[in-house]
Amino acid sequence: MRETMNIGVAGLGTVGTSAIKLLEENSELIAARCGKHLHVKAVCARTRGKPRGISLEGFDWVEDATLLASRPDIDLFVELIGGHDNTAKAAVEAAINAGKHVVTANKALLAIHGNAIAKMAEDAGVTLRFEAAVAGGIPVVKSLTESLAGERIRRVLGVMNGTCNFILTRMESNGSSYEETFAEADKLGYLESDPDLDVGGIDAGHKLALLSSIAFGTQVDFAGMDIEGIKRISITDIELARDMGYRVKLLGVARMSDSGLEQRTEPCLVPANSPLGRVENATNIVLLEGETTGPVYLMGAGAGGGPTAAAVIGDIIDIARGRTISTFGQPASTLKKVASTRSSAELAWYIRLLLVDQPGVLARIAAAFGDANVSINRLRQYGHDENGAPVLIVTHHTQREQLNHSLNAVRKTGLSLREPVAIRIEDG
Amino acid sequence: MRETMNIGVAGLGTVGTSAIKLLEENSELIAARCGKHLHVKAVCARTRGKPRGISLEGFDWVEDATLLASRPDIDLFVELIGGHDNTAKAAVEAAINAGKHVVTANKALLAIHGNAIAKMAEDAGVTLRFEAAVAGGIPVVKSLTESLAGERIRRVLGVMNGTCNFILTRMESNGSSYEETFAEADKLGYLESDPDLDVGGIDAGHKLALLSSIAFGTQVDFAGMDIEGIKRISITDIELARDMGYRVKLLGVARMSDSGLEQRTEPCLVPANSPLGRVENATNIVLLEGETTGPVYLMGAGAGGGPTAAAVIGDIIDIARGRTISTFGQPASTLKKVASTRSSAELAWYIRLLLVDQPGVLARIAAAFGDANVSINRLRQYGHDENGAPVLIVTHHTQREQLNHSLNAVRKTGLSLREPVAIRIEDG
Repeated sequence: MRETMNIGVAGLGTVGTSAIKLLEENSELIAARCGKHLHVKAVCARTRGKPRGISLEGFDWVEDATLLASRPDIDLFVELIGGHDNTAKAAVEAAINAGKHVVTANKALLAIHGNAIAKMAEDAGVTLRFEAAVAGGIPVVKSLTESLAGERIRRVLGVMNGTCNFILTRMESNGSSYEETFAEADKLGYLESDPDLDVGGIDAGHKLALLSSIAFGTQVDFAGMDIEGIKRISITDIELARDMGYRVKLLGVARMSDSGLEQRTEPCLVPANSPLGRVENATNIVLLEGETTGPVYLMGAGAGGGPTAAAVIGDIIDIARGRTISTFGQPASTLKKVASTRSSAELAWYIRLLLVDQPGVLARIAAAFGDANVSINRLRQYGHDENGAPVLIVTHHTQREQLNHSLNAVRKTGLSLREPVAIRIEDG
Repeated sequence: MRETMNIGVAGLGTVGTSAIKLLEENSELIAARCGKHLHVKAVCARTRGKPRGISLEGFDWVEDATLLASRPDIDLFVELIGGHDNTAKAAVEAAINAGKHVVTANKALLAIHGNAIAKMAEDAGVTLRFEAAVAGGIPVVKSLTESLAGERIRRVLGVMNGTCNFILTRMESNGSSYEETFAEADKLGYLESDPDLDVGGIDAGHKLALLSSIAFGTQVDFAGMDIEGIKRISITDIELARDMGYRVKLLGVARMSDSGLEQRTEPCLVPANSPLGRVENATNIVLLEGETTGPVYLMGAGAGGGPTAAAVIGDIIDIARGRTISTFGQPASTLKKVASTRSSAELAWYIRLLLVDQPGVLARIAAAFGDANVSINRLRQYGHDENGAPVLIVTHHTQREQLNHSLNAVRKTGLSLREPVAIRIEDG
């Protein structure tokens, strides 16, 4: 007879109910693969009566997540409550202290408290996994932590927020403004109760913070990340970028250099025909760039109950198979604390200017770039209208500092009618 | 002080030397991540003196792979010899019998002898991993075996032979014939000493056989696979398919249905703007389609010393971390033996005909399809030349049997001047 692993599930939203359904429907297949019978023993959620499309009759109902987490008859605790400063944290800590393994989809919790929680889990000798926290059903965390464990990672790059990518894709296909499209996404129920988590780049930032810790063997450092959402992206930039062969994506990017760890979540341009440039709507894609593997792309559904639940189940099976690993791939005490740096790798930039329409202007603007040692790769001047003459520039690779000098020089000419728009260009 | 895991490497081609270099160059990083010092203790290869770009001085040289595999001072045996009926098999068996873990890149060996070898490894209590055998540096084996272990897999689909994809891509971009492009690939050193392994679809077939065993919990059944290479693909079909919005790819496809396991490796059409349709040259892509995850795409370098070595290192680290798993994801004795079926899912087909150029022909051909209950989605007739009138048909989804009936009916009309070309269309 097969051994049973008893599971407690806290949080019965779309992911929690999908996970319970999956465990039931695929129980034979799962038992064959992990050698154990996985049994949901007890659950908890905010409200008991709510219709959820699954019956809760077979499970003990527990009023409090912390009580559930530390029940003696639970071997593994699944945390699907969410949030970083509430019951989720208390429950995860209670589970660890009671010697339970933990599977969570909570990116915020780990991005903010991951170092301490990883240390707690190791001290308690339990395993904590979080595949579902990053890019839903795509096996990014496992690939990076395990498959690429021998690699020096050059860059981690991802489109990891479906809502932002939906908004940017719709703006482009409908030619509509950010505000209109935001309202549409809201109507479709795509936004979190705090929409800033999505469109402010925070959710994607949480995910990037976890991946860069694994990739570079560093402490999780969400506070050291530069984050900018998609609010400043105008339909003008989307259309002009497309004109130059690019698409605008909210990217999470992490790189390690001699000056420290660079972590940024912000709208960038990527080549329209690159794998990242082609990703539409709510699809997620992550590029893991190893020194010997070269670029490895992982793509799929980054959110939704089913895909996220599948990632939770994958983690549970891993633990049931007896596979243990440090939370971020190496003991928490060995994760380096490194300086965060804003001076990034040399990149190309997209610059949009609105210039006074008079003779000799273009020459003076070009000189402003040249004097700052920023070399121009492509330049396009569009027909002027009553507002001025729009000019687009794509620079060659340059340091951020040099670019700032050039933009200051442009401002000083007095020929620029609006604050220049500058967007990074990443290879996708 | 860290424990040491001693490794023996048999086979010092481009993968073997890359793996040794990686273990040396990244030794600190790897030790931090797996908690052990990984030490290459002994090596063997066909010829000792050959220049390889690495020094062999620090390693014991062993003349015979089987001796190396069973040396008492080796904990883990890395088999990079290749082939399924030679020293590789004997060496892997010797290693298992001597209680060593095994990491191999040998798809042929496991496709032919995988069931028996998996059983041996389990009986001996050792772990055998083979990420490098399928799609080089892309973590396909791990993702399928572990991340998707709780999933019912609907379909496994992949472009897994770089040489074939290079040839097909070049034919399209140069408008050149198969024979010319084959000669070019040969000159570039892209072909195996037995080119049929690549262009005959066998190599891709080996890889698919391993993936479908994991995906469906079935015994590895390479013998039950339908295999067809790319030799019959003409530049005409590549160009006409492109005209209809498709590209020709050598696909490995596996599906399970009530009638059994369908495994095919053959040239198919995929939509040109799908992830599989866009894959160029030697890049590999695998699509794992789970019931709840939906499509998960993994893409990257499918061959080459570096990427393949990185996959070998990933497996070694997994074993060093103490992570064990059944070879194909569940105990070999529980892998089902299922019938292989040729009746596939209902698919759309691309049909190219060369017809007699006279009035009423098209109506009679259309009737031949209609009578066989095959419904036509798109039809294009091209201007006739001295050879006849070329006609392209894309059918709606249909069973293979019905399609055969319709093609027989076409043949019987006497209006078809050449044997019809029929190519499956898969969603990519």
